[in-house]
Amino acid sequence: MLISKMKSEECHEFLARQGVGRLACARDSQPYIVPIYFVYEPDHLYGFTTPGRKVEWMRVNPLVCVQADEVLSQDKWTSVVVLGRYEELSETREYSEERNKAQSLLVKRTSWWVTAYVASVVRGHAEPPLPVFYRIHITDITGLRASTKGSPVRVR
Amino acid sequence: MLISKMKSEECHEFLARQGVGRLACARDSQPYIVPIYFVYEPDHLYGFTTPGRKVEWMRVNPLVCVQADEVLSQDKWTSVVVLGRYEELSETREYSEERNKAQSLLVKRTSWWVTAYVASVVRGHAEPPLPVFYRIHITDITGLRASTKGSPVRVR
Repeated sequence: MLISKMKSEECHEFLARQGVGRLACARDSQPYIVPIYFVYEPDHLYGFTTPGRKVEWMRVNPLVCVQADEVLSQDKWTSVVVLGRYEELSETREYSEERNKAQSLLVKRTSWWVTAYVASVVRGHAEPPLPVFYRIHITDITGLRASTKGSPVRVR
Repeated sequence: MLISKMKSEECHEFLARQGVGRLACARDSQPYIVPIYFVYEPDHLYGFTTPGRKVEWMRVNPLVCVQADEVLSQDKWTSVVVLGRYEELSETREYSEERNKAQSLLVKRTSWWVTAYVASVVRGHAEPPLPVFYRIHITDITGLRASTKGSPVRVR
């Protein structure tokens, strides 16, 4: 198996193709992971969710991590890790343009709406709560890619 | 699609079947996610890695989160989240019994060794560094399961 660090452009291309990952937030030093759908735009990830633990935590501490991977086989996989900062696109005039942008990007991924809605139903809301749109400002991206050929690092 | 909260026993059974997940640790409020292999035993997850950012961070702040999922289709999936505390099974007599236990449990998962070794090679170590064995004391487990029938929560 051959493993290589991905170049910045390769990480960006990978995120643009992916729409599913895991987001970690933290409160009082306790991290918490949730699966998310996202849309990548240069320097940002856009997401949508319903109110819950994740949103409460990110309002207090906006530092987050998103990880996305694609595993084709044990020796052929890609994993990208993003460090970033959460920004809620709140229901104010200030954010209306960014909210519309997020909505138009995210509406193409229908399963996303289902997942967010389902989470709210599980938590016992009679009526679906207001959606929460957010964007993550990307501050750092790193990635590793494994393949059976073509990488500069050989594993004996 | 029907979604239900999993009972505690169901979460435990799921973790016992799974061996792959994502671990989040945090330093100075910044979470960080890495893919991991693990072995579940009652109340603990056992893991193995090579020195790196993840280990440095968990030595400072042992609070971690592990998430594992199984996605069969968009409307049939399981996701379990564990909150816990990292404990390094260091190279001391005190930990020799637990280290041996971890090693015997983990050696059955060969891909794990490859992944840990690969990470060390990518970071440029000429010789493989000493492995780091650890266990995670589970303090909380929650899980959601989606299916097309049989769940008490219906999503309209």
